Amino acid sequence: MHKFLLLGGDSRQLYLSRILTENGFFTVLHSDGDDPDFSLKEAMETCNIILCPIPFTKDKISLFSAHEMNDLGIGNLLSHLTSGHILFGGNIPAYVKEYARKNEIGCFDYMDMEDVTIKNTIATAEGAIAEAIRLSPGCLHQSKCLITGFGRCAKTLALKLKGLDLAITIAGRKANQLALASAMGFETILLSDLEKEIGRYDYIFNTIPALVIDGKLVSLVSRQATIIDIASAPGGVDFEACRQQGIRAKLSLGLPGIYAPETSAKILYEAILTCLSQTV
Amino acid sequence: MHKFLLLGGDSRQLYLSRILTENGFFTVLHSDGDDPDFSLKEAMETCNIILCPIPFTKDKISLFSAHEMNDLGIGNLLSHLTSGHILFGGNIPAYVKEYARKNEIGCFDYMDMEDVTIKNTIATAEGAIAEAIRLSPGCLHQSKCLITGFGRCAKTLALKLKGLDLAITIAGRKANQLALASAMGFETILLSDLEKEIGRYDYIFNTIPALVIDGKLVSLVSRQATIIDIASAPGGVDFEACRQQGIRAKLSLGLPGIYAPETSAKILYEAILTCLSQTV
Amino acid sequence: MHKFLLLGGDSRQLYLSRILTENGFFTVLHSDGDDPDFSLKEAMETCNIILCPIPFTKDKISLFSAHEMNDLGIGNLLSHLTSGHILFGGNIPAYVKEYARKNEIGCFDYMDMEDVTIKNTIATAEGAIAEAIRLSPGCLHQSKCLITGFGRCAKTLALKLKGLDLAITIAGRKANQLALASAMGFETILLSDLEKEIGRYDYIFNTIPALVIDGKLVSLVSRQATIIDIASAPGGVDFEACRQQGIRAKLSLGLPGIYAPETSAKILYEAILTCLSQTV
Amino acid sequence: MHKFLLLGGDSRQLYLSRILTENGFFTVLHSDGDDPDFSLKEAMETCNIILCPIPFTKDKISLFSAHEMNDLGIGNLLSHLTSGHILFGGNIPAYVKEYARKNEIGCFDYMDMEDVTIKNTIATAEGAIAEAIRLSPGCLHQSKCLITGFGRCAKTLALKLKGLDLAITIAGRKANQLALASAMGFETILLSDLEKEIGRYDYIFNTIPALVIDGKLVSLVSRQATIIDIASAPGGVDFEACRQQGIRAKLSLGLPGIYAPETSAKILYEAILTCLSQTV
Repeated sequence: MHKFLLLGGDSRQLYLSRILTENGFFTVLHSDGDDPDFSLKEAMETCNIILCPIPFTKDKISLFSAHEMNDLGIGNLLSHLTSGHILFGGNIPAYVKEYARKNEIGCFDYMDMEDVTIKNTIATAEGAIAEAIRLSPGCLHQSKCLITGFGRCAKTLALKLKGLDLAITIAGRKANQLALASAMGFETILLSDLEKEIGRYDYIFNTIPALVIDGKLVSLVSRQATIIDIASAPGGVDFEACRQQGIRAKLSLGLPGIYAPETSAKILYEAILTCLSQTV
Repeated sequence: MHKFLLLGGDSRQLYLSRILTENGFFTVLHSDGDDPDFSLKEAMETCNIILCPIPFTKDKISLFSAHEMNDLGIGNLLSHLTSGHILFGGNIPAYVKEYARKNEIGCFDYMDMEDVTIKNTIATAEGAIAEAIRLSPGCLHQSKCLITGFGRCAKTLALKLKGLDLAITIAGRKANQLALASAMGFETILLSDLEKEIGRYDYIFNTIPALVIDGKLVSLVSRQATIIDIASAPGGVDFEACRQQGIRAKLSLGLPGIYAPETSAKILYEAILTCLSQTV
Repeated sequence: MHKFLLLGGDSRQLYLSRILTENGFFTVLHSDGDDPDFSLKEAMETCNIILCPIPFTKDKISLFSAHEMNDLGIGNLLSHLTSGHILFGGNIPAYVKEYARKNEIGCFDYMDMEDVTIKNTIATAEGAIAEAIRLSPGCLHQSKCLITGFGRCAKTLALKLKGLDLAITIAGRKANQLALASAMGFETILLSDLEKEIGRYDYIFNTIPALVIDGKLVSLVSRQATIIDIASAPGGVDFEACRQQGIRAKLSLGLPGIYAPETSAKILYEAILTCLSQTV
Repeated sequence: MHKFLLLGGDSRQLYLSRILTENGFFTVLHSDGDDPDFSLKEAMETCNIILCPIPFTKDKISLFSAHEMNDLGIGNLLSHLTSGHILFGGNIPAYVKEYARKNEIGCFDYMDMEDVTIKNTIATAEGAIAEAIRLSPGCLHQSKCLITGFGRCAKTLALKLKGLDLAITIAGRKANQLALASAMGFETILLSDLEKEIGRYDYIFNTIPALVIDGKLVSLVSRQATIIDIASAPGGVDFEACRQQGIRAKLSLGLPGIYAPETSAKILYEAILTCLSQTV
C-alpha cells in the first residue's frame, strides 16, 4: 500500500493529508514550520508517493510553502528521489520533469490533468465572486460585467455570475469562441473593440494571462469599476495604471487554496488515486 | 432647498453624504470620532433633514455609530428637534416615533419602506453568499442547501444560490408558501419535518427571527455543515450548541452596510427623495 | 369510501379519472360524447363527489366539455344535488355556489385554492413558452421580452423565460411590485411609461385581465413582435388592432389543460383529497 | 454586386430571400411548386451565388424541397455550374464538393462553418423544448431529465433545460467531458452505467448520432417517460422498441427550420456574407 509524504504548500495539503489518513493511508505531513526532528531523507525512504505543493515552487529554489520553511530545497528533494518514488505537484518546473523522466521516476503535474483543471474552475469562480462582493462597495446584481477570455475558468465564472444576475459580456479574440459565448447566453465583443466599450462596465474579470487590460484601456475604465484579475501572475492588468487612476483592482491568485481548500484537496485526492491506479 | 445632517452610522452614511453632495445638496456629516468644534445644536439649526443611522440605536441611549462617539445621545437629539425638521432612520424606537408624531415632526423609518426593504435583500443575499464562500472550506457548487423561511430575504437569497448551482430546499410553516417556493424551482419541506432531513445539508441559511435551529436540530446537523444566520439579532440558531459540536456557524448581521454600502446609500437616497417629494 | 363522478371538461378529467382509479377509488367518467345509457340521475345517486370541469361552464347553460355533449345542463345537475354530495369545479358561477350554500352542499372551487392556482402557473408558463416558440419564426434566446403584470403567473413565467436567456422587462402599476421584480433580476417599467418603450420588444406576454395593450400601444409595437396573451378571456390585448397591423398575436387560454393535463390532474387530485380530509 | 439564386428548401429559404432583398441584393427564389416559366439555365446565367437548401438533398437525386418540385435534379444543377458561380448548401454530398473543387467553383457547406453550427444549437434547443412540452402530458418543471452526449447541441439544450428547472444528468463516454458537465452544474453519468439509472428519468433527450438508447435500455425506461431524439436521422433511439412498450418517443429533425426559420435565415445570411467577403 502506498505511503504518502506531503511537503509544503497551503491548507490544501492539510486537508489532503486528512483525507488520505481517513482513507487508511500512511501519511506524513511536513508543511508547517521547521521540525528539528524531521528528516527529509528518512521520510522519503519511508514514503513512496511524494506530494509536492501547488505551485511546486515560487522562488525556483525551494518548494512553495505558506509557512516559512528552510528545509525544502528542490535540489535536496531531487537528491533523495529514486525510481521507487512517484512525484506529484502543480506547475512542476520543466527541469524537474526532465530529471524525473531520465531517472525513471513517476512524475505527475496536477496542472496537466484536464479533470483537475476543470474542477478547479469552480473554486476559482466562487473565490472570484467572493472577492468581487468584498472589494466593491456596490452590488453585483444587475451590474454590467466584462469577462476577458473564454477558456475554462471564464466559462465557469461567466455562468455563475449570470446566475447572480449580472449582465455579462465576453471579450475574446476568435469569432467561434464568441459564437459559443453567445449560444451560452452572453453578450460578446471582440477584444480589439474593447476601447469603445470598456467604459460602461462595473466589473471586469480578466482570465487571460497576457497584458490585456493595458494602461490605455485602464484610462478608459469607469472610476467606479472593480477589476479582478484571476490570470496567472503577473496577470493581465496594468495595476500601476489602476492605482494612479484610483480604480479598485486586485490580482487574485490561488483562489481554490484560499476559498475551498477542502474541495480542492478532494479533487487532488481523486486525481492522485486515478493516476496511481493507472500506473501500477 | 433641503439641508441634510447625517449622524453616526457606518460607511453607508459616508456614501449617502457623498451622493447628496454630488447632487448639489448642502450636507453635514458627523459620523467619525469626536469633533470638538461640532455642535449638534448648531448643525440642527442649519439643517432641516436629519439622517440617523441604520439601526437608529443599539444601546437605546445613543445613536448607533461604527466609530466611538460620545455626543450622539438620543435625548440630546430629541431636545433639538422642531416641527421644521424631518427625521429619517432605520428601526427608530417606538418612543421616538411617538415623540415625533406628538410634536408634528416628520419621521420616516427606512425599515417601514417596502421598497427599501426589498432592495436591501439583494445586498443581504450577496453578503451572505460571500460569507458562506469564505467561512466554508468547500465549494457551494452542487452542494445541498437549506434555507429556513421564505420571506423577502429568503426569496432573493434562494434565487441567487440557485444561480450558483446549489440544490436548494426551502423550509417553511405554510403550505401556500411552499407551493410558491416549489413553483420558483425549489425543493420544499415543512419546518416540522426538519428533524428527519436536516442532517443531509451542507449549507444552512436561517432567515427566521426566532429560535428555529435549536439545540435539538443542531445535534442532527452534519459536522461538515456551515450555518449562516441572517435573521435579526439574536438570530434563530443555537450558536452555543454549534460551538460545542464544532459546527461552523455565524450570525451575519448588517450585511448591506458591510458588503454594499454604496448601493445601500443609493437606495436610501432615492427613498429619502421620494419621501420628501411626497411630504412637501 | 368516496365515489367520484367526473363530468365534461378536457383531457384533465381523463387523467384525473385515471389517477382516482389507480388509487382505488370508484370512479365514473362522463366526458366524451353522448352515451345513451348514461343517466346523470343514477350516476349522482351512486357517486357522492361530483367533479365538474375547469371552467365549470362557458355558455352559462351547460357544463363545459371539450367534446359536444347535450346532457350536461347546469339546471339538471343542480336538481339532482343533495346535501350528501360534494361539488368541485373551476370558476363555479356565483349562483351555483349560493345554491350549494343554501342547500348545505359542499362546494369547492379549484380557483379559490391558492395551492392549485400557484401550481398551475407552472403548466401555464410552460405552455406559453411552447406557444411563443411555435408562433414566432425567431428564437427566444437573447430577445427582448415584455411581461405585463407581476402576479403569480407572471412571476413563474418571468423566471422561466429568464432561464431561457431572454432579457425580461416587467411592466406593472405599483413601485413595490417593480422593486420586487428588480430584486428577482428583471428590468422594470411602469405601465404608464409603456408607450415610449413598447416598440423595442420582440415578445410581449400579457398576464393582466384588462385591456392593457390597447390599440394605441399596438400601433407602437414592432411589426416583428409576437404577442401572447394568457390573461382570462377576452384577454388584455386589442387583437383586432394586431390583425390590422399584421402583428402575430394569440389569446392562449387553458394552457394547463392543453400542455400538461396529467400534471394538472395530479394537482387537482391532491387538492381534492386535502379538501375531503378536512371536510369529513 | 452579387446576384442570388435560392433553390428548394424550407421556409428558411423564404426568409433568406427576404433578408437578401431587404439588403438590396438581386434575388431569385425558386422553392415553391413548379413554375413553367422558370428556367434553371437562365437563372444560373443571371445569378452568380447559388444558395442550395439544408439539407442539400434527401434522395441523392434532387435538391431537397419542402414542396414537391420536379426541376431540381442535382445533375442538372451541376451541368450549369461555371467557375463564376459560388455554391452554398448544407450537408453537400462529397461528390458535389469534389466536382466543385475540380472545376474551380467556390463551394461552401454551412455545416462546415463552426459559427453556423454553434448558432443553430439555439434554435434546435428551443425546438426540442417546444416538442417536449407538447409531447408530454406532464410538466418539465422539477422533472428528472437525461441528456445523452455533451457536444454543442447538448450543451445549449442542457443549459436551457436547467433554466426551466429540470434536474439534468449528462451521460457521456469521457471523464473530461463529464467533468466539464459537472462544472457547468449538471449531474453526470457514464454511458456505460446507464442501465442502472435510466429508469428514473422523466425526459430523455438523445444528441448522439449512434444507437445509444437501444432496445435493452428502452426496456428499462419508465413507461411515463418522454424521449426526444435530436441526433441526425436515423437517430440514436430504438423507436420500434418504444412503440412496442408504449413509450412516447419522437425523432425531431430539422428543428431550426420548423421553429425558427427567420433566425436560421439570418444566421445563414451573415455566414454567406462573411464567406463572400473573404473570397473576393
